[in-house]
Amino acid sequence: MTTAKAADTTIFTRRESEARSYCRSFPTVFTKASGAIMTDVQGREYIDFLAGCSSLNYGHNDPDMKSALIDHISRDGIAHGLDMYTDTKAAFLEAFENLILRPRGMDYKVMMTGPTGTNAVEAAIKLARKVTGRRNIVAFTNAFHGMTMGSLALTGNTAKREGAGGGSLADVTHMPFENAMGDNNTLEYIEWVLENPSSGMDDPAAFIVEPVQGEGGLNAASAEWLQGVERLARKHGALFIIDDIQSGIGRTGPYFSTEGMGLNPDMITQAKSFSGMGLPFAALLIRPDHDIWKPAEHNGTFRGNTHAFVTARVALEKFWSDDAFQKETLRKAKYLEDRLTEISAQIPGSALKGRGMMRGIDVGSGELASDICARCFEAGLIIETSGAHDEVVKVLAPLTIPDAVFAKGLNILESAVSAATGNNQIAAE
Amino acid sequence: MTTAKAADTTIFTRRESEARSYCRSFPTVFTKASGAIMTDVQGREYIDFLAGCSSLNYGHNDPDMKSALIDHISRDGIAHGLDMYTDTKAAFLEAFENLILRPRGMDYKVMMTGPTGTNAVEAAIKLARKVTGRRNIVAFTNAFHGMTMGSLALTGNTAKREGAGGGSLADVTHMPFENAMGDNNTLEYIEWVLENPSSGMDDPAAFIVEPVQGEGGLNAASAEWLQGVERLARKHGALFIIDDIQSGIGRTGPYFSTEGMGLNPDMITQAKSFSGMGLPFAALLIRPDHDIWKPAEHNGTFRGNTHAFVTARVALEKFWSDDAFQKETLRKAKYLEDRLTEISAQIPGSALKGRGMMRGIDVGSGELASDICARCFEAGLIIETSGAHDEVVKVLAPLTIPDAVFAKGLNILESAVSAATGNNQIAAE
Amino acid sequence: MTTAKAADTTIFTRRESEARSYCRSFPTVFTKASGAIMTDVQGREYIDFLAGCSSLNYGHNDPDMKSALIDHISRDGIAHGLDMYTDTKAAFLEAFENLILRPRGMDYKVMMTGPTGTNAVEAAIKLARKVTGRRNIVAFTNAFHGMTMGSLALTGNTAKREGAGGGSLADVTHMPFENAMGDNNTLEYIEWVLENPSSGMDDPAAFIVEPVQGEGGLNAASAEWLQGVERLARKHGALFIIDDIQSGIGRTGPYFSTEGMGLNPDMITQAKSFSGMGLPFAALLIRPDHDIWKPAEHNGTFRGNTHAFVTARVALEKFWSDDAFQKETLRKAKYLEDRLTEISAQIPGSALKGRGMMRGIDVGSGELASDICARCFEAGLIIETSGAHDEVVKVLAPLTIPDAVFAKGLNILESAVSAATGNNQIAAE
Amino acid sequence: MTTAKAADTTIFTRRESEARSYCRSFPTVFTKASGAIMTDVQGREYIDFLAGCSSLNYGHNDPDMKSALIDHISRDGIAHGLDMYTDTKAAFLEAFENLILRPRGMDYKVMMTGPTGTNAVEAAIKLARKVTGRRNIVAFTNAFHGMTMGSLALTGNTAKREGAGGGSLADVTHMPFENAMGDNNTLEYIEWVLENPSSGMDDPAAFIVEPVQGEGGLNAASAEWLQGVERLARKHGALFIIDDIQSGIGRTGPYFSTEGMGLNPDMITQAKSFSGMGLPFAALLIRPDHDIWKPAEHNGTFRGNTHAFVTARVALEKFWSDDAFQKETLRKAKYLEDRLTEISAQIPGSALKGRGMMRGIDVGSGELASDICARCFEAGLIIETSGAHDEVVKVLAPLTIPDAVFAKGLNILESAVSAATGNNQIAAE
Repeated sequence: MTTAKAADTTIFTRRESEARSYCRSFPTVFTKASGAIMTDVQGREYIDFLAGCSSLNYGHNDPDMKSALIDHISRDGIAHGLDMYTDTKAAFLEAFENLILRPRGMDYKVMMTGPTGTNAVEAAIKLARKVTGRRNIVAFTNAFHGMTMGSLALTGNTAKREGAGGGSLADVTHMPFENAMGDNNTLEYIEWVLENPSSGMDDPAAFIVEPVQGEGGLNAASAEWLQGVERLARKHGALFIIDDIQSGIGRTGPYFSTEGMGLNPDMITQAKSFSGMGLPFAALLIRPDHDIWKPAEHNGTFRGNTHAFVTARVALEKFWSDDAFQKETLRKAKYLEDRLTEISAQIPGSALKGRGMMRGIDVGSGELASDICARCFEAGLIIETSGAHDEVVKVLAPLTIPDAVFAKGLNILESAVSAATGNNQIAAE
Repeated sequence: MTTAKAADTTIFTRRESEARSYCRSFPTVFTKASGAIMTDVQGREYIDFLAGCSSLNYGHNDPDMKSALIDHISRDGIAHGLDMYTDTKAAFLEAFENLILRPRGMDYKVMMTGPTGTNAVEAAIKLARKVTGRRNIVAFTNAFHGMTMGSLALTGNTAKREGAGGGSLADVTHMPFENAMGDNNTLEYIEWVLENPSSGMDDPAAFIVEPVQGEGGLNAASAEWLQGVERLARKHGALFIIDDIQSGIGRTGPYFSTEGMGLNPDMITQAKSFSGMGLPFAALLIRPDHDIWKPAEHNGTFRGNTHAFVTARVALEKFWSDDAFQKETLRKAKYLEDRLTEISAQIPGSALKGRGMMRGIDVGSGELASDICARCFEAGLIIETSGAHDEVVKVLAPLTIPDAVFAKGLNILESAVSAATGNNQIAAE
Repeated sequence: MTTAKAADTTIFTRRESEARSYCRSFPTVFTKASGAIMTDVQGREYIDFLAGCSSLNYGHNDPDMKSALIDHISRDGIAHGLDMYTDTKAAFLEAFENLILRPRGMDYKVMMTGPTGTNAVEAAIKLARKVTGRRNIVAFTNAFHGMTMGSLALTGNTAKREGAGGGSLADVTHMPFENAMGDNNTLEYIEWVLENPSSGMDDPAAFIVEPVQGEGGLNAASAEWLQGVERLARKHGALFIIDDIQSGIGRTGPYFSTEGMGLNPDMITQAKSFSGMGLPFAALLIRPDHDIWKPAEHNGTFRGNTHAFVTARVALEKFWSDDAFQKETLRKAKYLEDRLTEISAQIPGSALKGRGMMRGIDVGSGELASDICARCFEAGLIIETSGAHDEVVKVLAPLTIPDAVFAKGLNILESAVSAATGNNQIAAE
Repeated sequence: MTTAKAADTTIFTRRESEARSYCRSFPTVFTKASGAIMTDVQGREYIDFLAGCSSLNYGHNDPDMKSALIDHISRDGIAHGLDMYTDTKAAFLEAFENLILRPRGMDYKVMMTGPTGTNAVEAAIKLARKVTGRRNIVAFTNAFHGMTMGSLALTGNTAKREGAGGGSLADVTHMPFENAMGDNNTLEYIEWVLENPSSGMDDPAAFIVEPVQGEGGLNAASAEWLQGVERLARKHGALFIIDDIQSGIGRTGPYFSTEGMGLNPDMITQAKSFSGMGLPFAALLIRPDHDIWKPAEHNGTFRGNTHAFVTARVALEKFWSDDAFQKETLRKAKYLEDRLTEISAQIPGSALKGRGMMRGIDVGSGELASDICARCFEAGLIIETSGAHDEVVKVLAPLTIPDAVFAKGLNILESAVSAATGNNQIAAE
């Protein structure tokens, strides 16, 4: 930190659990945020290339969402109503039906799960088991689906799995994600295991897949591979579940990251940017024929965060009434790709990862990635790593980021890469 | 419904999953709420004796919380900051330290888990397993700890457990709660199982217990029994975890439902009314020596809901700076007890359940309980059942409910009981 | 050992695994055995009150079985035929049908499992799960059903369970055996758990019970209690499985230990004395309607030990063609009871355990029991302990033991008890 | 059957469980057997190419074993002694030490498990978990390790796994066996999964592998692949367990099927031909430093079948005192390979499988394999199939089979193949 006086963080070290994490990478105290800028207690501004891990696709504190939420609170709109019917839930569901489902020819029931991604995932695997009468779920290497026991069993990361303290993480088979082992699509292997009656793999209830693995290192699956997974699922009587929590809601361009791929998932999870404003909110989209839940069979106190209904509706109306936002995202994604391609060229052996506005550079080691991110933070850019070895520097800017701010942030990244790799001539540009 | 025109609920039946539940008991559309009153789309007002299942202990839309939250939003305060340091989190932690922990001589680290009760429970059992190197968790009959797979394994309810669709609910031993089988404290049985080296019970990592079981039927444990459970846990090298999600935060009078009982839990879960205003928020309180989490070992996108930090801090400052609120709650609890005792007298074989402002009547059957609640709703009172057979009519009014409104709500309940049981002479009073 | 030259046991300590056990209590090398007498390498004779843990109910090397087996081997009778049809298997099955099933009005299919008790138990629980579509098995405190993972999950003993090294021992609920906690029949508790829809107990596929728990301390269940267990099983759609491995085949008098109790088990396990001569042999008796196995769905190399078919047939014909043997056993059992009652009177706080010729004395501590057994061995009697704390000195003499030998063995026991407890005046008798 | 009067098998269909299997393929009643010949009740002789699934490597009723066993029985040698020290056990252990371990420079403790292969496997995985403190075991596709729950979890076959009736088959990861998916050694894949910290695979306690998969289709692993598996196990802190139950004890030539491969397994299982005469007998060989069992931590009534000690000792002394038997086996194996190569040439797309005297032909379909075996039986040859689809006709002749009988059996097989495939010109030879 170059600031004269470091922010006082003693209350956190004294009272907050050792489990805290991001705060360790960004050792200051933030006080406000707007659009793509976060401001700390000393008034220093940071460009946000983390965006709540894709929870802030529309940026911080969108003025229209703020205004609608303040209005809602001011008029004593429901803040908490369990899962009772409310006007705001109705308005949200209507917007979701009219702006998202209908235009895409999709027919799904919306299950308001607890307002966290992991809760939507847990609901999905429970329902898949109920629907099929089978127990085994296929998840993929490098997958991240959450930290509660059901989702953790699906998660690939060893360090995360050890958090279970030895509790059973059963009923899951992990399969290699596309290109996980180099230049192959892995479908052949998966098919061989499924078709071999002596493979030791029990019949799957479902396949659950992230179209772009976020925590796993920005691994983007191709349409062909995802189609192959769906085809194998159908052939073997299993459901096909898309976990679009980090990759969806515009992050790769379209609302769902798999639009145009010819897929027909049985369930789709929604969270992170689902509320529009970063409020806790999650849902499970379910093909109507699979919606065999009994009332309250999966319940929860905070399912259907009412404040989130308000902001989520605004987000849908503001950004998804036509295709302008999606086009704008794809335009920025092209710019991002070009810049990252240049930056990546500085790092021998590096590789561009991801898709749309969910991109990053595999810099080859967690040490280098961490060094780059630390230099960026010094220079006013919030950016993080992902991947099995934390080896990917990932850019998850708000989709609404102004071009100039985006460029400025990428310039900081470029300079940090130069400095970290010793290519100072480039850093001088 | 006696209203001229029923609220339009077609969007919900068309688009919301069959898992929805409370809305089925209260078939109208709510639009606003304040204090103890909810108002529907036709302007009809209902007294709220459900209070978000104890998530609204301070009532709906407390004006001071509203004002602080609006101010926070207006000034672009952080809405979502992952688990970065923010001024609002600092202010919340300081208030929690100064107003809750210090005055009670308690020393706990605060783990911001995903903002749902089940996430706090999952974190607790994962950590207990890590700390002890054991897998088995002791939970109690009629326990309810959540719907994600780890918490669901702890939960007693068969219908809820069947939601797992056959997924493994392992590593848990269920023991009888106090008086579960009639007039005995059950500690003797539990001790016998623990001490018998051939009982088939594997050494426990922890005991997790709700001091007053909410969903399980308002079963209130005595101080002696809870002390006994803690003593057995200590003797057998297990942690002692209090799940105070529904019973805590003033519901039984003091902030923690176990204050004054001489207990020293290793962990305490917090959720429901923790944010003060019904916003999603949860935490796990951990004795510092047990806080062995590695950074991010249990993480989550929404841990530390920033809006909730704002309202939770206001709640602490407003209601817990002195003992006035607690005294007021105990006063109301006495009134509630008196009224429920009278009402219970109408129902042969019924029994008063619960403690503090978490009370109810076991009316003997789910059918009668359901009939009573339906009659209440017709008359403008929102009230629900709990218990293994949904046989308990429970009163979970906001603690801030004005005396007159409280009386009016109880009058409605009394009349409904009379009508349902045919004691019309009483109903006529 | 008082013998001049101890037997050479170095080969065992050098080459046999530390898991070896009985040899540690009886540190000599045995060379031959006949009836109730074992002889060691120095020619010393020992009365055998262990009888292969009830595997030698007819004594060692019964001359008729020997002769039939020698004849079979001499004529190149099949020694190993997998599960092919053989004349000896046919003869055995016919004898079992004619002498055991028909006279008792029982109709069971015989499943030749691997020739160990644990294999029969594993087959039983697998089949119960297949038949009911449920996973949970109810086993009892102090139960012992075997060491393979499925049976071990049923077993109560902690030291044995720790042998699993942390492998999952799931899908089992342990319930208290009759009088396990003192003077109650425990059925009330079991029923309460089953009937309480919030007990956390998943619907059981089966109850498996030993009528007299052998390893668990010679706990003999009453007819009333076993009827109660069967009634609860039926009421809740679960199968009722009798594990008669140690208690059956005449040990308590009748062939099955539950004869005359009005029970109708769905399955019965057979092993230990099933071959008559101590050869490995086991079977699962299955009510025909439950015999839904597909061919080879549970197979094994040694199922149907052909040598055992030969000796088992002889045993059936010799001992079960009429009721003489059963009557003789009951006569000896009465004598045993009288003698043990007297011996028990020497030990304050001791209690008589078991039933029939499966009796013992709970002497109050493992130390005392161990001391008594060591003194017995010095005096020429092989006798062992059982129970959760190894606190029961158990008498499992061959049922064929001559009266004089039986009396002599009991005299040794009586003296050992006197010496161990310091009651020398009694020892002098 | 071409016999005038079929054998009476009604007792079996009336009383033996539907689980019975081999008897369905060989619908006659056998009465005696000697060497490589089995004789049925009508006096018809069959050449035995099944040999108890490799349990009769020395043929039926070896005269020296018979004689020693008859002598033992005649002199009242111990038939059942639990795991007490006996002269016969000592003699067996000394022979095993002197003839097997010492000449091969091997140092192992011998654990007498229950006398079935599955019990030895269960002991191995329990011990591996105890030694490493880890739970996960790596087993391979097409593996067969037994039918009890622990071994069944390791087994690849779906039909067998379904026998568990839904009981948990947890704590196992299945990996592809060498060439399982065609022309690759699969080590690269296994290594990638182990080294990827986000693969979702938990650290393994052990790898367990059959050097030649018997039930899985006679898949023979190369020395290089097995070395690779051991290397990966060592690198990742896991034990390396060889399951040599079907492949060992001379079946591929040397006593252990992996001799000369430069392997150093932590444990080796022994069963099937271990007793020499087909009697139930099994053991687990344990590297001394891993022998951390507590006394009786894994016990069993029939561990150490005393009759088997007698015959097993004779087998060791007769066949393993020098290398003559091994050489003779390899000579026969060469002849077998030549003949099967010729026979295989008749079947388009067929492939030779296995190693040593554990060979077979993958004929491409279970239907054809079954047809061939049925024709062989008609012609007086007992032969069976294996493989995931029962597509391999396997030759498991006694190693002691006389050349002329071996040739005659192979002639029958050749004719049956010709007839089944319509190549009558060859059948006419």
